[in-house]
Amino acid sequence: MRIVVLTGGIGGARFLLGVRAHARAIGAEVTAVVNVGDDVRMHGLQICPDLDSVMYTLGGAADPERGWGRVGETWVVRDELAKYGVEPSWFGLGDKDTATHLVRTTMLNAGYPLSAVTAALCERWQPGITMLPATDDRLETHVVADVEGERKAIHFQEWWVRYRGDVPTHRFVFVGAESAKPAAGVLDAVAGADIVLVAPSNPVVSIAPVLAVPQLKEAVTSGPAPIVGVSPIIGGAPVRGMADRCLATLEVEVSAAGVGRMYGPRAEGGLLDGWLVDESDAGAQVPGVTTRAVPLWMTDEQATARMVAAALELGGVK
Amino acid sequence: MRIVVLTGGIGGARFLLGVRAHARAIGAEVTAVVNVGDDVRMHGLQICPDLDSVMYTLGGAADPERGWGRVGETWVVRDELAKYGVEPSWFGLGDKDTATHLVRTTMLNAGYPLSAVTAALCERWQPGITMLPATDDRLETHVVADVEGERKAIHFQEWWVRYRGDVPTHRFVFVGAESAKPAAGVLDAVAGADIVLVAPSNPVVSIAPVLAVPQLKEAVTSGPAPIVGVSPIIGGAPVRGMADRCLATLEVEVSAAGVGRMYGPRAEGGLLDGWLVDESDAGAQVPGVTTRAVPLWMTDEQATARMVAAALELGGVK
Repeated sequence: MRIVVLTGGIGGARFLLGVRAHARAIGAEVTAVVNVGDDVRMHGLQICPDLDSVMYTLGGAADPERGWGRVGETWVVRDELAKYGVEPSWFGLGDKDTATHLVRTTMLNAGYPLSAVTAALCERWQPGITMLPATDDRLETHVVADVEGERKAIHFQEWWVRYRGDVPTHRFVFVGAESAKPAAGVLDAVAGADIVLVAPSNPVVSIAPVLAVPQLKEAVTSGPAPIVGVSPIIGGAPVRGMADRCLATLEVEVSAAGVGRMYGPRAEGGLLDGWLVDESDAGAQVPGVTTRAVPLWMTDEQATARMVAAALELGGVK
Repeated sequence: MRIVVLTGGIGGARFLLGVRAHARAIGAEVTAVVNVGDDVRMHGLQICPDLDSVMYTLGGAADPERGWGRVGETWVVRDELAKYGVEPSWFGLGDKDTATHLVRTTMLNAGYPLSAVTAALCERWQPGITMLPATDDRLETHVVADVEGERKAIHFQEWWVRYRGDVPTHRFVFVGAESAKPAAGVLDAVAGADIVLVAPSNPVVSIAPVLAVPQLKEAVTSGPAPIVGVSPIIGGAPVRGMADRCLATLEVEVSAAGVGRMYGPRAEGGLLDGWLVDESDAGAQVPGVTTRAVPLWMTDEQATARMVAAALELGGVK
């Protein structure tokens, strides 16, 4: 059994803990195809928030309190950069994280693709799954928003971290997506998958940029494997993060049904064969998609693994 | 009164504390022309040990115990890099230092010359003197040495930090020196100088690479200002560092007289008009160079300032 998971960062990482646990129980292999739209170069360092969230979480080194970055992180580099007065000052560059970024940037500058760099970093972290970036090419999520009285396109990180998404927001643009190719290994993983799971990540800024890579979307939606998504919305609110702000920008209803309809049924050019929603959203209607309601709160690995088992069952590959 | 000082890192930085103190007392301006031969790119960061030693020391932020780097330094980045298993592992990359290197590297990669980057960093540190790199071009000191059974050219930092200079050593090569131009501001500073001082830095690997920039050496030695050197050797031993190992490689006697003769009299194609040696070396003979003996131990700023006063007097510009 081979499971491919399309995923973003923090929520997706937590979901992957359950995927890994269930996969171990049934002897399955897992490949995560991770969003790179959040990636950004700051202070000369290539920062990949979602890849790092997945890597640190599965490597047992993520900070459970803060939700991102490393447990036991220190902030000397950030504080020193602030004393030099260099921008951006709103980005929290941890010292441990800095080392990861230095290794990554050095390898990228030496010509290695991001997929190879990620594999090298994972030598240390041993996430227990295969981690692939969606693409080795440049793909950045930019946000068209009104900032300080001016409409402009800012990097997703600036919108998310600096402005907490709390500015009039018009649209999201996946810069570079049209010409981006799936990263090395992605097409093979999708072609060999028995099921593709869509993690309960932000559909607008985590899953959409993954599927914005044309050949990747084509491989997933025209491939043989069933596609089952897990709702990131429970009872009308995102489980975590700012999916509500993002969905509002797209005028999508902030509900399990709204997101399911946004993804749409595969038979009609959409993404989904199955859609897993929380018990509290049991009445959610997504025409053309088989919907099932189970508890979706990822309170621990076991609870999450049960969600994954339900998703596999919904996909008919139990 | 305008004083130009040719200098390396730690010892030179301590000397500059005295130069600055004396300059303040007499209302003089000081420009330090700093060795860049130690500079190295590690983990993608451009590291300038001598510029940083001078900047941190004059900025009041150097570690007086360790002799290099920042006081209160932490080592999270270094330890993390080691956990990734990336080389070099023998270089101590402090967290505070890392921020300096990030700012510098980002500016260099954006196209600013090292002299402009140094000026920008000094906005924070306010060293109270003008700091110029010897050159804005690439100039690296490499060392031809027998390492693990093989004769090869290694970067000066590897020779110095990794091997502590304790390998059979054949020669020093200043890679890039022949085509290097003096950094912006250097020729003007030299042309406008009332005196050029040669700091008691390592003559082989700190002062020689500065003078290996052809137009810089020409400007100094053919300029109007008297040139007075301060011996880095007291009583047959270097005040600090490994000048003895370096001098031995060049078969130069490890003595105040030996170094003075190596620099040589300006009238015969050498460097010096005057040579300041320690009281204990009062008998040092350097034919063609006016020698004077005063206490050369830089025990504090006042003692060092008295050395500087003696050097100016020896140069006839008291």
